[in-house]
Amino acid sequence: MKKLFLLAVLLQLSLLSFAQQGRAKEIISPEINPDNTVTFRLNAPNATKVQITGDFLTTQGPSDLTKGSDGIWEFKTPAPLKPELYNYSFLVDGLKMNDPNNVYLIRDVANVFNVFLIGGDRADLYKINKVAHGTVSRRWYESPTLKMARRMTIYTPAGYESSKKRYPVLYLLHGMGNDEEGWITLGRAAQILDNLIAQGKAKPMIVVMPNGNVAQEAAPGESSLGYYKPTSQLPKTMEGSMEKSFPDIVNFIDSNYRTIKAKSGRAIAGLSMGGFHSYHISKEYPDLFDYVGLFSAAILSGRENDSPVYQDSEAKLKTQFAKNPKLYYIAIGKTDFLYKGNEAYRKLLDEKGYKYIYYESEEGHLWKNWRIYLSEFAPMLFK
Amino acid sequence: MKKLFLLAVLLQLSLLSFAQQGRAKEIISPEINPDNTVTFRLNAPNATKVQITGDFLTTQGPSDLTKGSDGIWEFKTPAPLKPELYNYSFLVDGLKMNDPNNVYLIRDVANVFNVFLIGGDRADLYKINKVAHGTVSRRWYESPTLKMARRMTIYTPAGYESSKKRYPVLYLLHGMGNDEEGWITLGRAAQILDNLIAQGKAKPMIVVMPNGNVAQEAAPGESSLGYYKPTSQLPKTMEGSMEKSFPDIVNFIDSNYRTIKAKSGRAIAGLSMGGFHSYHISKEYPDLFDYVGLFSAAILSGRENDSPVYQDSEAKLKTQFAKNPKLYYIAIGKTDFLYKGNEAYRKLLDEKGYKYIYYESEEGHLWKNWRIYLSEFAPMLFK
Repeated sequence: MKKLFLLAVLLQLSLLSFAQQGRAKEIISPEINPDNTVTFRLNAPNATKVQITGDFLTTQGPSDLTKGSDGIWEFKTPAPLKPELYNYSFLVDGLKMNDPNNVYLIRDVANVFNVFLIGGDRADLYKINKVAHGTVSRRWYESPTLKMARRMTIYTPAGYESSKKRYPVLYLLHGMGNDEEGWITLGRAAQILDNLIAQGKAKPMIVVMPNGNVAQEAAPGESSLGYYKPTSQLPKTMEGSMEKSFPDIVNFIDSNYRTIKAKSGRAIAGLSMGGFHSYHISKEYPDLFDYVGLFSAAILSGRENDSPVYQDSEAKLKTQFAKNPKLYYIAIGKTDFLYKGNEAYRKLLDEKGYKYIYYESEEGHLWKNWRIYLSEFAPMLFK
Repeated sequence: MKKLFLLAVLLQLSLLSFAQQGRAKEIISPEINPDNTVTFRLNAPNATKVQITGDFLTTQGPSDLTKGSDGIWEFKTPAPLKPELYNYSFLVDGLKMNDPNNVYLIRDVANVFNVFLIGGDRADLYKINKVAHGTVSRRWYESPTLKMARRMTIYTPAGYESSKKRYPVLYLLHGMGNDEEGWITLGRAAQILDNLIAQGKAKPMIVVMPNGNVAQEAAPGESSLGYYKPTSQLPKTMEGSMEKSFPDIVNFIDSNYRTIKAKSGRAIAGLSMGGFHSYHISKEYPDLFDYVGLFSAAILSGRENDSPVYQDSEAKLKTQFAKNPKLYYIAIGKTDFLYKGNEAYRKLLDEKGYKYIYYESEEGHLWKNWRIYLSEFAPMLFK
């Protein structure tokens, strides 16, 4: 009797979330097949057209799913997919929707999409493997320059908390419209560092991922603004405030973590707008960073009237390079719309004889490339 | 000319995410109106029926949205909503989907739904207010008993890192199928603690939110299993392993944080299965916790054969209460399906003369209630 009551309670506990949500028929989507083709499924008996969009599709525009007699639509990729973190959405009679059978969603600025991962090769760095894991913290700090409390994401490598050692720090900056969540979600920064460190390919380091939009306290939904509709059209993103206030972040980290408080223990890198920030911050404060990474950087000219930070760039670069930074790294994709600006910048560096390492990848302005650049850049740091 | 190039680049940077995602017409949903009615909108010109489900609906079953001439469907709540964190989904021609205009999604076991928050009254505790914020960390620890590396979520109160003081610890346990993310997402534990501490109503404390499913290393998507379809049907959740291995967690926290290493500095509380765990752990280790909270606890009998932890409960309770715990707190909703089990348990405590505080709320087995219980319980701790 007691046993029966117990079983009933356990069953009810287990089924509660099912019952509450009216869950659809149990189907698996996406299913990664043994040959790395992928099958997507959607139970939509009433739909007249179901399509899929995703960064793995090689065709122009969305691909059609085929309806089965059970009302379940299906699409199988025509060929195996290469190892990578991919994203997708469904279009049901023209309406974009997430896959209800895939709970793994990532927000990128104002869009949410499903993700899946094909392991192997470099993409094994993006997986959570059975290695020692660092700690990921969301922490608030005061910026005296901006007179604001602001949120950042901090990765401390495995062993940091139990050690007494001092660690070097990589400051890792996001792109326009993104925020302090970008590198940890789409960028897989914690996984890349966990894995590279475990393989002995990167030194254990702290990674600091601040919010580069000085008009924001924090990522959408994580600030006192509550839940609002995010936009990439933020004020004050590229007018000098982020660059001028950056020492606030370095000071906070140096006084709150066991860091190597020296230029040789600091790196700065960023993607797109974050590359623009890294470019300016590293020359504005030439004694702060010995390692600089520009990932698909928005190297823009004609900003001199917006901030003193953007003035006298050539003189500042001269000072920066006279101090022999240990690494100046530039990476961009062949089809990136910022390619020309980077080409012109490399030409300038070549003319001046300033040393840098250049990495050119396929494709364009994509998280896929920024994960690659981070996994190339991190092993070169602090050696 | 340079300015024009710059503008073009900035525009392209800003529009990139739009272009990539083929975003729908710009509409606001949900819109919280000044009187706290809420309007939901979905741009679905091809749909024949659009409905909404949500925990704020007072009617049986989903409510219909009305189609406007522009193809945008709309539903306005018939009355203002009370302050609360709510969830909802759309049903488009019978197919459940998230609101594409609301990027705020929370996963609960195997379901993902949209959320919104109406502030005011107690729900102001669930908001991110302009107060000092604690740090939220995801950290891995080794469990010698389970021989596994496992992930937990840890809240350290504002000021912890810059102080040399020792802090008390609340161990806060989740329910069946949930994991170390539950209390921080749906439970709003960081916001509740930030706000109660800022108001002087709760003592600054560390909150430790472990994963109570000993078959898991971590929440779905956060372990070496990668992205798989989660289920609430997990093995080994209520057979003694979590309870027996709990000192591993306490030892890890006591050796890695500046804690008050004494019974008077430790509380344990949990919801549903986590209440079941708290009940057993606190009597199994009667010298560990001076504060115990059972939130909608699964007080089940007839488990004696599953583990020595579940044997001799009355004798263990006698020992526990002989040591005069400072607080034994029981809370449940009037319509909770576990109400009878809790009633029987209170009767037993009454018969034995064991002191406890009882809090009875409206409604049932809901996160809404668990947020209330946490905000009632935390102010009573460590005083």
